[in-house]
Formats: sequence, structure tokens, C-alpha cells
Amino acid sequence: MNKYSVILGNLGNTCDRFLSSGYKEIPPKETLIRQASEINGVKGLELVGTWDVNKDNVNEMGDLLSKYGLECVSIIPDLFAQRRWGKGSISAKDPAIRAQAMEYLYECVETARILKCGTLNIWPGQDGYDYILQSDLIQERRWLEENITTLAKSAPDIRFALEYKPKEPRNFSFMARAADTLLLAQRTGMDNVGVCIDTGHGYAAGENVGESVVILQEYGKKLFHMHFNDNYGGWDDDMIVGSVHFPTYVETLFWLKETGYDGWLSMDQYPYREDGKRAVEESVLFLQMIEKHLDSPKVMDELRSLVTRGNAVETQKWLRETFYK
Amino acid sequence: MNKYSVILGNLGNTCDRFLSSGYKEIPPKETLIRQASEINGVKGLELVGTWDVNKDNVNEMGDLLSKYGLECVSIIPDLFAQRRWGKGSISAKDPAIRAQAMEYLYECVETARILKCGTLNIWPGQDGYDYILQSDLIQERRWLEENITTLAKSAPDIRFALEYKPKEPRNFSFMARAADTLLLAQRTGMDNVGVCIDTGHGYAAGENVGESVVILQEYGKKLFHMHFNDNYGGWDDDMIVGSVHFPTYVETLFWLKETGYDGWLSMDQYPYREDGKRAVEESVLFLQMIEKHLDSPKVMDELRSLVTRGNAVETQKWLRETFYK
Amino acid sequence: MNKYSVILGNLGNTCDRFLSSGYKEIPPKETLIRQASEINGVKGLELVGTWDVNKDNVNEMGDLLSKYGLECVSIIPDLFAQRRWGKGSISAKDPAIRAQAMEYLYECVETARILKCGTLNIWPGQDGYDYILQSDLIQERRWLEENITTLAKSAPDIRFALEYKPKEPRNFSFMARAADTLLLAQRTGMDNVGVCIDTGHGYAAGENVGESVVILQEYGKKLFHMHFNDNYGGWDDDMIVGSVHFPTYVETLFWLKETGYDGWLSMDQYPYREDGKRAVEESVLFLQMIEKHLDSPKVMDELRSLVTRGNAVETQKWLRETFYK
Amino acid sequence: MNKYSVILGNLGNTCDRFLSSGYKEIPPKETLIRQASEINGVKGLELVGTWDVNKDNVNEMGDLLSKYGLECVSIIPDLFAQRRWGKGSISAKDPAIRAQAMEYLYECVETARILKCGTLNIWPGQDGYDYILQSDLIQERRWLEENITTLAKSAPDIRFALEYKPKEPRNFSFMARAADTLLLAQRTGMDNVGVCIDTGHGYAAGENVGESVVILQEYGKKLFHMHFNDNYGGWDDDMIVGSVHFPTYVETLFWLKETGYDGWLSMDQYPYREDGKRAVEESVLFLQMIEKHLDSPKVMDELRSLVTRGNAVETQKWLRETFYK
Repeated sequence: MNKYSVILGNLGNTCDRFLSSGYKEIPPKETLIRQASEINGVKGLELVGTWDVNKDNVNEMGDLLSKYGLECVSIIPDLFAQRRWGKGSISAKDPAIRAQAMEYLYECVETARILKCGTLNIWPGQDGYDYILQSDLIQERRWLEENITTLAKSAPDIRFALEYKPKEPRNFSFMARAADTLLLAQRTGMDNVGVCIDTGHGYAAGENVGESVVILQEYGKKLFHMHFNDNYGGWDDDMIVGSVHFPTYVETLFWLKETGYDGWLSMDQYPYREDGKRAVEESVLFLQMIEKHLDSPKVMDELRSLVTRGNAVETQKWLRETFYK
Repeated sequence: MNKYSVILGNLGNTCDRFLSSGYKEIPPKETLIRQASEINGVKGLELVGTWDVNKDNVNEMGDLLSKYGLECVSIIPDLFAQRRWGKGSISAKDPAIRAQAMEYLYECVETARILKCGTLNIWPGQDGYDYILQSDLIQERRWLEENITTLAKSAPDIRFALEYKPKEPRNFSFMARAADTLLLAQRTGMDNVGVCIDTGHGYAAGENVGESVVILQEYGKKLFHMHFNDNYGGWDDDMIVGSVHFPTYVETLFWLKETGYDGWLSMDQYPYREDGKRAVEESVLFLQMIEKHLDSPKVMDELRSLVTRGNAVETQKWLRETFYK
Repeated sequence: MNKYSVILGNLGNTCDRFLSSGYKEIPPKETLIRQASEINGVKGLELVGTWDVNKDNVNEMGDLLSKYGLECVSIIPDLFAQRRWGKGSISAKDPAIRAQAMEYLYECVETARILKCGTLNIWPGQDGYDYILQSDLIQERRWLEENITTLAKSAPDIRFALEYKPKEPRNFSFMARAADTLLLAQRTGMDNVGVCIDTGHGYAAGENVGESVVILQEYGKKLFHMHFNDNYGGWDDDMIVGSVHFPTYVETLFWLKETGYDGWLSMDQYPYREDGKRAVEESVLFLQMIEKHLDSPKVMDELRSLVTRGNAVETQKWLRETFYK
Repeated sequence: MNKYSVILGNLGNTCDRFLSSGYKEIPPKETLIRQASEINGVKGLELVGTWDVNKDNVNEMGDLLSKYGLECVSIIPDLFAQRRWGKGSISAKDPAIRAQAMEYLYECVETARILKCGTLNIWPGQDGYDYILQSDLIQERRWLEENITTLAKSAPDIRFALEYKPKEPRNFSFMARAADTLLLAQRTGMDNVGVCIDTGHGYAAGENVGESVVILQEYGKKLFHMHFNDNYGGWDDDMIVGSVHFPTYVETLFWLKETGYDGWLSMDQYPYREDGKRAVEESVLFLQMIEKHLDSPKVMDELRSLVTRGNAVETQKWLRETFYK
């Protein structure tokens, strides 16, 4: 049975470059946490640094999670929402910034331990570049690799899930796609470094997410975490799961099951103009609708047979008859 | 009740630039026509010039259509599969080519009349350009407009559906999107010139196809024809309907109904490696599955209410509960 | 000789959804205006509502423009950076919001008159939708059209340049591409309604911008304004002109000249992490480099000949030999 | 000094799915070879299996290459233009097809040896899938890896350059991007397996090609070969180098030099409607124009300084002043 969780920060903080104050009133943290706990099937929360959790409020957050029966699934260090990281964090050209970023990550490790959270989900959104000929690609990518390695060695009790995204906020991210991020994870030589797939980042990168799952799992069981959302294909629109695509979610859940993924399915959306709780809830309900079918051994056998035979017409017929009324 | 049809030519001819001989054996025309007639709900055929029909075989084709109880829904003049049109047809720089293209189109009008077919679906795939600074954009677009106007005036008994596509085989098509093609149609000043939406061309152009339907219908009932297929969003992959996306087809069928579209829903795919008949059949079955729901006045009322309120969460909930098991 | 201008607001306000406080310190308005005036060739400013100008500071802004010898090229009403417009402004479902948006636009007309500015550049960024089946596409597009018409009728002394963009902040904008925005402009029946091309919006829409120029000019001299920037093709990255593409700018300046465009070339960038003044200045210098060549009647004749002949090899050779050292 | 070469097959065979007979008359092989030899700087040819070379004509081709003073830079086995490979070659579901593909590749090794050609450029264009849930992603990717490994072990005297491409002719290729192809190369454990970058495939995959060069070189000097062309970003348009983009080619040549790449720069275009020889020649001339600047140690030092500092404004200024008249 799949374990569902939610990123608290994304549930609350949703502004954009035109409306920096955000599209709606954000309720207090306790309200958000209570709302998350009320979503059917949700048992865990991801907390974003700065936005949701820091060394000063960590105990308070821990109490709230306990009160509402939620596990802290991951800490997402804030390497993107502070002006000092504007030109990069752990791969910044400025050595002082790299040092600050590492110091902050060590602090996040402590925060995670206090919350009995086993995973840091590292999304270094500012690490990359915007313009051609703006980055010393050799040197900066090395800093990134060295710092991830150092961090992972310093905390063998923590799993580091590296989250890739092709672009935004930089026009090119250093961790851009599943395979380059896996290469980086492999180069650290550390068992506690793996990759997080965000389905929408995968679509925006032109990946078939089911295949990204397989690549990461086949090359060393390196799929550490999953973020779910939907988009129109060209940008990280962070929408409700199933609002654009359908068969890809069936394939993704199928391969997650086939490859023995036992981590969380975490909802990661930006419901700018929607009720946050209900938008996330719809995503969970959509995935549970698919999961319900895949719970059947017969359905799983049919899927195995379909992918083995590879007849697109039969697959479409099966999808239509199995899922649609 | 929707009327379904199929493009015969696309059912048979499917090669690409790497495998010019095509991926499979193509059965004889009669077999293809019989197969089309056996698809549940299919009552019409579109015939592509050169590939399927020409002045020499028109009577034979007419007999075959009669034999299998199929209506000729449209003729698609071949303005793309002859070497002489390689640099454009009715907007080519070479006046001799433009004249030949017009002559050929008049011939297609005759063919249509013989087949009691009321529509020419004009897809001038070679009319456009590949490189920046390669086209005299003012002059060539004028030739296109003038020739469409002349053609339409010459045959007031025929409806001309202009089919747009952003690119391929040229990197830029002159008829690229719904609105620019509508502008061109309006400029002819002719009631018998309208637009054909190919859903996949719309996705590749970044359009929300439901909105393209509304624009064409609102600005003078100019939606003359519909081609259906699916793709991944960036290219005209010409796949089975519903194999990638879902809600967009509900919205498209909803607005077709709301705006009083009473034309054909024609399947236009390139089943390179699939059984052609069954691939097309799956598309029809998928659309019929949606149509069945939209047949209910209650469902249509719910849709009207959803688009009026605009609450994305409610819409997703409704889609999930209405369509998915 | 081309007239260059700058959007003041974009020069200063550059945050994104992750770093809502922005990437740098923003100098006071007077400093920004002085900086703009120091850029070689820049003679005009565009002012964004709320961010730069409102009814309370309009006289102060007018004095500053005079002090630094700058013309107010356009007012860009703020229909995107206030929470009340979050679900649309002049096409919002809520009639009270539509009324407020119109009232605000009338106010902007007054502001423009005070500043002796002849153009309102209307970018209704929030008017559109995010999800499929979220918009009553017929009704909401009608409100948009009616309100633009009413506005244009109310101020015949002002030109209204409608700026299109395919997406962001909404996943689908009602004014999405050149041709649909031209259709809307035509439907108002008003001579003082036209279109603004933002080159980057055009690229993101898959348009060849030179062709968009031609379409707007050919169909009634409807190109009212130009915004310049560059991007990687899939998103409005708002970068320095020429930092990604080259030949497209030659073609665009060529057709602007050929079609008699005599408006401003306005720089519209988001230099998140760059020195704003210098980033804009580089764009102007890049365009001036091209302009210098196009000033030559011989070069213009060569271009006319190239587009007439359409030989891509010759065009590339000519570009290489004419522009590159 | 860079070594330039040309793919003979692409120079001649250029049809598409609409015009399967091709857009122009193809001259005899000897004419094509002579034309290639006449292009300034071109010293090598790549030969495509079936189209250009096979076991029957290999000696004749060898003689022609000698006659015109051209080196055979690589053999590109035909794994894409035969109907039997339509559903895959070395990863096909059918074991008989996989066996045939391997047998054919062994034959290509022999052909290469006869031509004293050290490289097989493997582009398994049909290996992938079109539809979701059509591929047994684990098993088929394993077959691909095993067969590449077996092949590489069988011919230690030959280098195997794996060419990636995100899509076409399949909607998803197994070798899709630089990093996943590098992973595959690494997994073979063979020093004679590396990667070929086609610049246009990189753009279509959303990669910054300079960074792909760095990744491949940094992770084990795995860049074995380079194909050059240009496109609009979303598809493999196979155009003349520099006809769309500029700075990316400067960055790519810079990093090729910085990372010690000493292989060929091979032109890979589809000049459907152009004179093939002259279209390829323009690409070579464009790259030579850049190379001429990069020959200067001062320019290389300036570039090193620019990427170290990362100031986009300075970079743009430098590009403008260094390259443009």
C-alpha cells in the first residue's frame, strides 16, 4: 500500500514573479498541518527550510507533527529562497557562499534528526546558470559533486535525495535530468545519496517518468523519493495529478511497484488560486484510484503482459476498459 | 450523435524520413475501405489526393465507397506529396507552380463533385519556409490568400476547410494556428471558407483545443472540420486518441456540442507500427466513451456549471467521479 | 532611425516564485530613471502601474521624466500584480472585479494624459485560465472584447496596444498569440486598438517574429508597439537581446522597416541577477549593431533580394559575411 | 586545428513522411564524394550503412575515398532504415531481430576495418517506444546494454560512439540524452564505448551542448564524436550551423578545446530543399569563422576569464565586440 505525504511549504507559499505577495491568505502553520492530516491516506509531511522549519522552531514543529499524527518524511533545505543563494549555493562561484550553504545543510541534518526524519531532499534550485558562457562548467560541477559527497559522508544516518529539474529559477540547472543526477549520485560513491523524481520536472525535461523510475532503480536502487504533480509538458506548472495526463500515472505506479519502490508518494503542487488542501487531496484521490486497480495481482499480470507484448492498440483498449466507465 | 470518419490515406501510407519504404505492408485500397467500414460508428471516409484518389480512379473509388456504405467526407488535395510542391504550392515563389497547384485544386473540386463530397480539406503543408529570411512574407502570404479566394469563388458549392499546423514538413507553415488561419479565411470574404482543427496540430501549437473550437465558432461559425489524434505536446505524433491526454478531449467534445458543431469527427493518425484499423478503432471507441457521458443533459448541465464557476478542484473531482471507475 | 526605450518596472522589480523578495537591492526611482537616460539611444520610458506610477505620484514621475529628458512611451496598467486580479481582471468571472479593472484602466488613461503619453500597453496577464474546463470560454472572451472596446471608445486620443503571451502567470492566456490578439483588436472596430509584440512571447508561442510583424502590419497596420528580449524558446526568460539567437533579429528589424513601423523599440527584460542598466544597454547596443547595417540602402536591397529568391544557403552566406568578423 | 567531416548519406538522402521519394534528384555516389572533398577543410566522410556502404560495395567506396583524399571517419550502421528494425534492433522484443542486428553490426565492424575506419557511430533510432506501457523498460534496456557490451568486446580495435536523440523515429529513444547514454557506456565497462553528441539532438533534448561536452569529458573522456547542425529547439530540424543560434557554438567549441577533444567535427544536416554541398559548406565556414577567433590564446584566456566571473553582461559585450562587425 502506497504511503502518501505532502510538502507543507508548497501548500502555503504560492506567489509568482508578478504577484510577489501571493494569491491568497496563508493560514497559520498549525492550520496547514491539521489540514494535511485530514487528507485521506496522508501520513507524512515534507518541511521546507526557512518557509516551514528552522533551528528555532524545530521543536514546535515536531510537537505539531506529533499532535496531528504525521511523520516528517523529508526536510527540503532552503537553497533557493534566500538572496544569498541567488547565484548558487553549494556550487556558487563565491567560496564564502559555498561554505555558508554547507553550514546551513549541516544545520538541516540536525533539524532532521530532531524530527526523526531520515531524508534530506536536496533541490539546489539556484545552482546552475542563465546565460551561455556564464559558468565554469567543469569547476562548478565539481564543487557541487564534492559538497554533496562531503555532506553525505558527514551524515551516514541520513539519506540524501537529489531532486532534479531542467530549469527554473535558473535557465539551466546543474541537476537537470534523472540520468545526470544519477551520475552525480554515483560519483559520490555513497550509498546514502540517491535521486528524487518530481513527475512534473520529468515531463518538462521530456522524460517518460516510468522510464526514469526504471533507470534509477536498475542502476543501483537509487530512487529515494517521489514528488507528484501534473503539467502541460513544457513547464513546471505544478498542477493537480491527472488534470492533464492519464496513462503516464498508471505506468509510473506500475514501475514503482515492479521495481520495489517503498518510499513515499509526496504531493508537490503550487495551487496558486485553489484551496490548497483540496487541490492536494484531489491528487491523492486520483493516485489512489489507480492504486486500487493495481492492488489486484490480475491487473499487475495484465500490465506485465502488455509491456512484454508492446501492442499499443491492446494497451489502449486495456486502459479504456480497465479505468473508464 | 457524433458522426465519425477516417482518413483513408493515413491509414495506409506511413513512412518516415528514415524508412521511406514504410513500416508495413499496405493492403489494397478495397481492403482498407472495407476495414474502415467495419469500425463501429464510422460512416465516412476522407480521401487524400494522389495517395487515394485522382481523376483516373475516382469512379472506381466512388463504387467502393458505395459498396461499403461510406460517405466521402472530404477530399484532401495532395499539396505535399509531389516533388513539384517541395517549395510551396499555391504560395510558391514560382508562378508556374502556383498555376499548377490551382489547376490541380480545380481538378480536386471536380473529383469531389463526382463523389458527392461537399468539402475540400486544404492542408498546404509545403507552403511556408524553413529558414529565417527565406520568405517574402508579405508577397507569399498574399498569394496564398488570393489563391484561396479565387478557388472558393470558383466553387461555391464546395466548402473549403483550411487545416493549420505549426510546422512539418516546413519549419514554419503559413497556416500555423487557429487564429491566423481564421484571419485568412475571413479575408477571403467567402462563406464557404473555414478552418479544420487537427487536435494534435493544436497541441503542438500550444493551443488549448477547446478554446480553438470556441474562437472559430464565435468568430463566424468557421469551424468546418475536425481531425482527431493525440501526441506528447511538442510534435505531431499522430497517436491514438486518449493515449496521452484525457480531460482535453472532454472539454473539446463539450465545446463542439455547445457551439453547435455538426460536422464530422475524423480520425487522423499515423499508426506506423500498429494495425491501422484497430488503432483508428480505439480512437473512435475512446471518443464514444466520452460522448456517451455527454449525451446526458445532466452531464452537460454539470459541465456548464463547472466552467461557469471555474473551481479547478471541483472540476477534477467531477472528472474523476464521472469518468473513472 | 529607430527609437529605443525601456520598461522601468522590469528594470527594477525582479523576483520569482522562489525568492519573492527579489534578487537584488532596488535603487530609488530617480536613480533608475537617471540610469535609463544614460543608455545610448534611449529616449523613452514605459511605466508600469503600481510598480512605477499611480495617480498619487504621477506628477512627481512627470517631473523626473522631464528632468532626465525622457518621453513616456507607454503606461502598462497593472492588471497582474494585485491580488484582486488573481483570477482575471477585465474578463474575470466576478462582475465587481471587472468593474474595478475598468475603473482602474480609466484612471490609467488619465495618468497617461497627464504624462503626455499616447499609448496604454495592455497586458492582461491574469486573464486566462490554468485548468481545462475552468473557463466559460465564450462568455469570458466576450467580456474581454467588450471591455477593450468600451475602453477604446472612451479614449479616442489614446492608442491601446494589446500585448499577447501564450502563458504565465496563467497556463493559458486569452491574448496568447499575434493572430488571436489581432482578431480581438479587429472585433473592437476601433482604430486605436492594436497589438504589441514582445519578441520573447513570440518565440515562446512558436512564432517567427518577423512573420508576426508582417501579419499585424498587413492586416491593417495593427502593430502598435514592440518589446525586445531573448529566450531559449520555451519560456519567457526575458534575457539580453542576442544572447541566444541572431538571424531572427535581423529579419525582425528588416520587416519592421519594410512595413513602415515607426513606433518604439522597447527593451523588456528581467535581469534577475544582472546589473539592470547594463543588461538593458547591451540589448540596445546589439540592436543598434544590426540597425547600423540596415541603414544602408544596399543592405536593404540585398535583403529584399534574398527573401525574394529564398535560397537558404545564400542567406546564410550573406549573414555570415555581412555581420561576422 | 579542427578536423571537419561530413555524413555522406545525409547529404544525399532527404525525404520525409509526406514526400517519400525525396525533394530532389540525388547525384551518383562519386559525385557526392567529390563534392564533399571540395568543401574547404573537409578531410573525412561518415558513411551510413545501406544508404552508402555495405559489404558488397565496400571496396568500391574505399577506392572512391582514396581517389578524393578523404578519410572514413565513421561508419553509421543502418539500424533505422530497414523494415526489420521497425520495432527495434539490438533491443527489439524479438530475439531473432536482435540476433540479426548483432550480425549486421559485426559486418559493419568488418566494413570499417576494410576502410581503415576506427569508429562505429551507433544510432539505434528504432530502439525505444512510442506509447506509454508499450515497453518492458527493464528488459529491453538490459538487452541494449548487453548487446553494446558484447559488440564492444568483440572489436577492441574499434571505438563505438553512441549517438543519443530524445525522439524520432520513436517517440521515446532508449539513448535519449547525454547523461543516460554515458551511463550506458559506463555500464559496459569498456574503454572503447563512448558517446556522440549531435548538437541538434542536444538542443531538442533541452541540453546546453557545452555542458554536455563537459559532462562526457569529465566523466571519463567519453566524448568520442561530434555532429553539427542547428534547429529551432523543439525538433531535429537538421539545419545549417548558425542559421538560428550563435553563442552556443562559441561555447561548444570553447569547451571542446578546453577538454582536449581531438576528434572530428562532422556536419550532419538534412538539406531537403537546398544544394547539399553548399549547405554543408556553409556550416563548415561558420564553424571556421568561430575557430579562427578561438585560435588566439588571448581569446581563449578571455573566455576562461568570462566563465570564471560569470557576468552575463560582460559576456554579451565581449561576444558582440569580438564577433560582430
